[in-house]
Amino acid sequence: MAIAERVKVVEVGPRDGLQNEKQFVPTDIKVELINRLSAAGFQNVEAASFVSPKWVPQMADGAEVMAAIERRPGTIYSVLTPNLKGFEGALAAGADEVVIFGAASESFSQRNINCSIAESIARFEPVASAAKEAGLRVRASISCALGCPYEGEIAPAAVADVVKRMLALGCNEIDIADTIGVGTPRKVTAVMNAVSAVADPAMLSAHFHDTYGMALANILAALEAGIAIVHSSAAGLGGCPYAKGATGNVATEDVLYMLHGMDIETGIDLDQVISTGQWISDYLQRANSSRAGKAIITKRQAA
Amino acid sequence: MAIAERVKVVEVGPRDGLQNEKQFVPTDIKVELINRLSAAGFQNVEAASFVSPKWVPQMADGAEVMAAIERRPGTIYSVLTPNLKGFEGALAAGADEVVIFGAASESFSQRNINCSIAESIARFEPVASAAKEAGLRVRASISCALGCPYEGEIAPAAVADVVKRMLALGCNEIDIADTIGVGTPRKVTAVMNAVSAVADPAMLSAHFHDTYGMALANILAALEAGIAIVHSSAAGLGGCPYAKGATGNVATEDVLYMLHGMDIETGIDLDQVISTGQWISDYLQRANSSRAGKAIITKRQAA
Repeated sequence: MAIAERVKVVEVGPRDGLQNEKQFVPTDIKVELINRLSAAGFQNVEAASFVSPKWVPQMADGAEVMAAIERRPGTIYSVLTPNLKGFEGALAAGADEVVIFGAASESFSQRNINCSIAESIARFEPVASAAKEAGLRVRASISCALGCPYEGEIAPAAVADVVKRMLALGCNEIDIADTIGVGTPRKVTAVMNAVSAVADPAMLSAHFHDTYGMALANILAALEAGIAIVHSSAAGLGGCPYAKGATGNVATEDVLYMLHGMDIETGIDLDQVISTGQWISDYLQRANSSRAGKAIITKRQAA
Repeated sequence: MAIAERVKVVEVGPRDGLQNEKQFVPTDIKVELINRLSAAGFQNVEAASFVSPKWVPQMADGAEVMAAIERRPGTIYSVLTPNLKGFEGALAAGADEVVIFGAASESFSQRNINCSIAESIARFEPVASAAKEAGLRVRASISCALGCPYEGEIAPAAVADVVKRMLALGCNEIDIADTIGVGTPRKVTAVMNAVSAVADPAMLSAHFHDTYGMALANILAALEAGIAIVHSSAAGLGGCPYAKGATGNVATEDVLYMLHGMDIETGIDLDQVISTGQWISDYLQRANSSRAGKAIITKRQAA
C-alpha cells in the first residue's frame, strides 16, 4: 500500500510518558512541557489523565494542568478517562478528546483492570456515549495488540474483534498498542491488515513501545500497511512497567527524523521537539532516550 | 520484492566495534569474544584489522588474535587490510576474507584516507588481486553510502558507480555502509535499487549504524529491497567517531530479535549473543546498547 504523504504524530509524553516516570512532576513543569510541544506544531497532545490519584499519583493534577495550558488553535488535547467520574472531570477541564482503553488479551485485562475484555467495554459504554453527546472525540487504546506479558502471542483476529466492539461505541480513533514492545514487522503487518478489514485505516494509530528496539521498524511496517497516525513521546519519556529500566514509548524525535527523512509531512518542528526533549530530560535527571535527539544535540555542540 | 527466508548476519563487534571503543582490549578478551560469537553460530565474524598500529592502536594485536581463536568450521573470519603489507599479515594469519574499503563521498575519502575515490580503488587493486590469487574472499566496504558528514546527501548513482569499480576488482561481497547513521528507509530503498542494477543483490550487505536510531527500520527497508546480508555488533559495541557519545553499529541482539520475530532464519542463538553482549559490556564498563538484550536480561532477572 502507498505510504501516506502526511502523518499525524500524537505526542503522548505528558501523559503516557510522565505517568511511567518514577517521580511526581510539578504542575508548572507539565504545563510548560505541553505548551512547548503545542508550539512545536503537534495536532494532538495527550495531556492528562483523570484517574484516581490513589492508582496514578503522577497524574493527580490533571484539572490544574488542563486549566493552565495555552490552547493552540487546531491542537487536540486528549485526556484519559477510566469511568464517568473521570469523564466529568475531563469535560469540566475542556478536554477535546477522551481516551478509553481495553486490552486484546484476557489475562492482561484481568490483571490490569480487574475485569474481562467484554466487561471493560461494557463499562466504557456510558463514558463513550456521554462524550459523544457532549461533542467530544473518543479514542480507544487497545493494549497488548502485538503480544501480552502473560499470554505471549495474541491472534490478529482477537485484536480485530476488540476494534469492532470499540467501533460500536462510536470511537473516532483506535490505537493499536504494543504495550510491551515485543512486536516485529511481520506481526505488525498481520495485525494492521486484520484490523483494517473491520475499520477504516484512517482511524487507526500505531502506538508502539521501543522496549526491544523494534518501534521504528514496526512504524515503517504500519505505514506500509496504510496507517497514518503514530504515537510517540518526546525524549522517549516514560518506561516500561513490565521491564524495569527498559525503554517505553518510542521517542518522538526518532519518529520525526524518520518521517521527515522519508519526505512525509508532519507539520512539526523537529528542532523544537529536540530542545524540549532535552529540557525535560535534564529536569527529570534522566537520560534522553532519543537517539536522533542525542546525535543532533552532539552535532550542534560540536559546530 | 520478497524478503529472504534466510539472512546472513555478519558480526563486526570484534573489529568495527572494538576499534571505536576508547580503551585497548587485551588480546585474551578479544579471543574470548570471537570464540563466544563463533559458538553462537555466526557464519562470518569480522575478527581483526591489519592496519598500522600508529593509526589504530586498538587493533595492534591482530596476528595474535587470529592465531589464538578457535576456528569454527563453516565460519568466515574476516580481516581489514588497507594495503599489501596488511594483506601479507592477513594471509599469514590465515584470514578467510580480506576487507578493503572505499567511500561513496569524495570529501570523506580525502579526509579519511587522504586520496580520491579513484586513487583509493587503484591502491586496493593489488590487494584484491593478491587475495584472489591466494584463494581468499574479498569484501569491499563502501562508507557514507547513505550520507556524508561533509557533503550531506550522496546520490545513489555515486554509490552504484563505486560498487561497479569494486566489482571490477573481483570483490565477492560489497557492504553498503551508513557510516554516520543518517539514512532513512526511502533513501535505503533508492540506494539498494540503484546498486542492485549493477550488482547481484546476493552480494550486497546492509552495514548500518544506529546513530539516529534508524538502523532497524533501514534494515527492514533493505530486506524489502532484496538484501540478505546484514552487519551488526554485539551489544552495539563501538561508537561513532563523528558524534561522540552517540551509538555506532546497530546491536546484533536487536537485529536477531527482529529477524527471528519475522521467521527469518539466521542459524544464530540469540540467547548466547545476549550473554556475550552483556559480558563484554560489563568487561568494558560500558552500557549495553542493545534494547532487546537489556529487555530480555531484565525479564530473565525478574523470572
